[in-house]
Amino acid sequence: MLKEQIYELGKKARTASRILATASTRMKNEGLIAMAEALRVNKGEILSANRLDLENGHSTGLPEPMLERLLLNEKRIDEMAYGLDKTADLKDPVGEVLGAWKNRQGLEIGRTRVPLGVIGIVYESRPNVTADAAGLCLKSGNSVILKGGKEAINSNRIIASIISSAARSRGIPEGAIQFIDSTDRESTAILMKMNEYLDVLIPRGGKGLKEAIQQNATVPVIMTGMGICHVFIDETADMPMAVNIAVNAKVSRPSTCNSAETLLIHEKCAEALLPSVAKALEEKGVELRGDERARTIWPGMKRASMEDWATEYLDLIMSVKVVKGLEEAVDHINTYGTGHSEAIVTENYSSSSRFLEAVDAAAVYVNASTRFTDGGEFGFGAEMGISTQKLHARGPMGLEQLTSVKYIIRGHGQIRG
Amino acid sequence: MLKEQIYELGKKARTASRILATASTRMKNEGLIAMAEALRVNKGEILSANRLDLENGHSTGLPEPMLERLLLNEKRIDEMAYGLDKTADLKDPVGEVLGAWKNRQGLEIGRTRVPLGVIGIVYESRPNVTADAAGLCLKSGNSVILKGGKEAINSNRIIASIISSAARSRGIPEGAIQFIDSTDRESTAILMKMNEYLDVLIPRGGKGLKEAIQQNATVPVIMTGMGICHVFIDETADMPMAVNIAVNAKVSRPSTCNSAETLLIHEKCAEALLPSVAKALEEKGVELRGDERARTIWPGMKRASMEDWATEYLDLIMSVKVVKGLEEAVDHINTYGTGHSEAIVTENYSSSSRFLEAVDAAAVYVNASTRFTDGGEFGFGAEMGISTQKLHARGPMGLEQLTSVKYIIRGHGQIRG
Repeated sequence: MLKEQIYELGKKARTASRILATASTRMKNEGLIAMAEALRVNKGEILSANRLDLENGHSTGLPEPMLERLLLNEKRIDEMAYGLDKTADLKDPVGEVLGAWKNRQGLEIGRTRVPLGVIGIVYESRPNVTADAAGLCLKSGNSVILKGGKEAINSNRIIASIISSAARSRGIPEGAIQFIDSTDRESTAILMKMNEYLDVLIPRGGKGLKEAIQQNATVPVIMTGMGICHVFIDETADMPMAVNIAVNAKVSRPSTCNSAETLLIHEKCAEALLPSVAKALEEKGVELRGDERARTIWPGMKRASMEDWATEYLDLIMSVKVVKGLEEAVDHINTYGTGHSEAIVTENYSSSSRFLEAVDAAAVYVNASTRFTDGGEFGFGAEMGISTQKLHARGPMGLEQLTSVKYIIRGHGQIRG
Repeated sequence: MLKEQIYELGKKARTASRILATASTRMKNEGLIAMAEALRVNKGEILSANRLDLENGHSTGLPEPMLERLLLNEKRIDEMAYGLDKTADLKDPVGEVLGAWKNRQGLEIGRTRVPLGVIGIVYESRPNVTADAAGLCLKSGNSVILKGGKEAINSNRIIASIISSAARSRGIPEGAIQFIDSTDRESTAILMKMNEYLDVLIPRGGKGLKEAIQQNATVPVIMTGMGICHVFIDETADMPMAVNIAVNAKVSRPSTCNSAETLLIHEKCAEALLPSVAKALEEKGVELRGDERARTIWPGMKRASMEDWATEYLDLIMSVKVVKGLEEAVDHINTYGTGHSEAIVTENYSSSSRFLEAVDAAAVYVNASTRFTDGGEFGFGAEMGISTQKLHARGPMGLEQLTSVKYIIRGHGQIRG
């Protein structure tokens, strides 16, 4: 798409965002419910568009996991619609007063939650993101500009068109939900420099997309979902719990960012516990890659290279390292982790406290699986991804993380001396 | 400075930040008090270094306002020291629990305030920023890397050296406060791409510096202090209050970002009020630049060009526009404002509500001067600038705005189904 066309979308989004910022909760909810209903009613059309994408995918030799992510069926469309209905049920974050006080001059100062304004989302193959992201942005009073992956262009186009016209039918302004109907990368490059109209850009997708945006964006960006997560089995760990947590963190859904990639185990319990943990993981089909000491205890493992500690496998592979103790585990995590989710399994109180305090990550767990880092599990409802940066949002991004603040000040003629 | 040297500072800062993150409030406060004391004790050395900078400034023909910003004297050094003492008195934001709940699986989830980590500050001629910024970063548990302007290199070097060794003498880790002892722009260019070690970069200085950082940084940035602020005199405004607020917002300190640059006035009161307001401003030495209608009422004004509406004068100049009413005022502000501070003078309740709601800015005032947008006036204590972006921090940045959050999760073996 041409720069002028994308800027035109930006301008419309900005105009719509001014209206949305003061739209009633009721109107936004009615929009969301209409969007859900429109998805259900127009299933046939969505499925035909999706078939086109799948055919193109097959003929261009798209790998099986990508075809799987691309696939829509009646159940998945119902889930998208259900997600929008559920977003309507969530508390509206806009207008919440986060604090109010009088200053020494008698000014009444209030800190109020307001929408961010215009949010750009660049995503890859999963077409459900089109509806999910649009729903969260609408509920939080933001305009959204969506740019999906080229594999899903037909599915995304029809979903975007259905939901945006359903929203408009309930009074949501034109420009609130817009879709960049283009498969070129140039559009993304324009979007990431459109500071006049974009308040934030959120990339959702693979490493390549995220790095390109981090390197080139001039608009504020929120980086999400890079997860090299660890499970550390401390000296005093309960054996069945350690096995359960390590297995769950690795195998319950290896393609997600909150899955563990590395197992750290205290040298004092490695001989007693590692065989059981390793066996349980291998029985689930996990390929283990260990350091020297781990391989002495469980010789079947492959040798881990330095690169393994810094790799997000997103697959049934796990690196294993025997550490001298808690401090080495913490150092390893703070060196190789991506600041996502980290867990310790321990029965020792002081170790649990030290781990919680010293590990620098969005979510730090004692005796629980890293897989819980998720908006739904945290009780936030839907989410826009897991932020792995420290600025603005850290961890699961729910509706609150899509807002900013505004100071409202009421005076009676005060001037500054 | 070479890239390797700056990365070495980054590495040290990161190591120190891990220690600082769990440092006690007491230790941080003792560091701050020692820094203040060291500034007082070493006044002579600071003044000699400052004299060098002033001499260089004179000989290179630095403009008078820059020399004024560069100048240190005993009083200014005492103020810097007092600022550090006051920062020690502020509440430590680190460790505050922002919420805690049990999820449906019985996990105890807590949301806790933690430091950002490593903060970079790039600033221009005012050497007091060296001490102020270091103090705020230390109190909020962050390491700081400071890069000052070349005009102040001698002053900054000695101040940084005095405060960092004073802090170290109280157990603050080496690397907590570091100064880039270089005047080349290349160092700034390296800093703004040092994603491995920098959690955020805050530019404090002129438009050129900020634009260069916005265009080129790959690290997260907080943009501060761009202020095209407006005062809108509504139809029902009280005349003396309108005069007072307009004059205070423009002339009390024109070089600051919270000063007003444009006066908007409702057409229904323009004939009655504009002459008094214009006269009062001109008596304070303000050059007025008006649109056609304003010039009909007060013919002495220069003609405003389109460019005037988009200019931050930072000087005794003010543009003046007669508007048809509140909505035109809001549109003008949302078009030309920088989202900093905006004021309405009105006696009408509905107009005040509409203005507060519809104006998109960090601080929106009814019947008070825009000049109050300031950490001290808001009751935050010291500040790191006024953020004009919506991500992470908006408005005055106090200690809280220099923190992130961390989720602490305690379980008893939970795994995700």
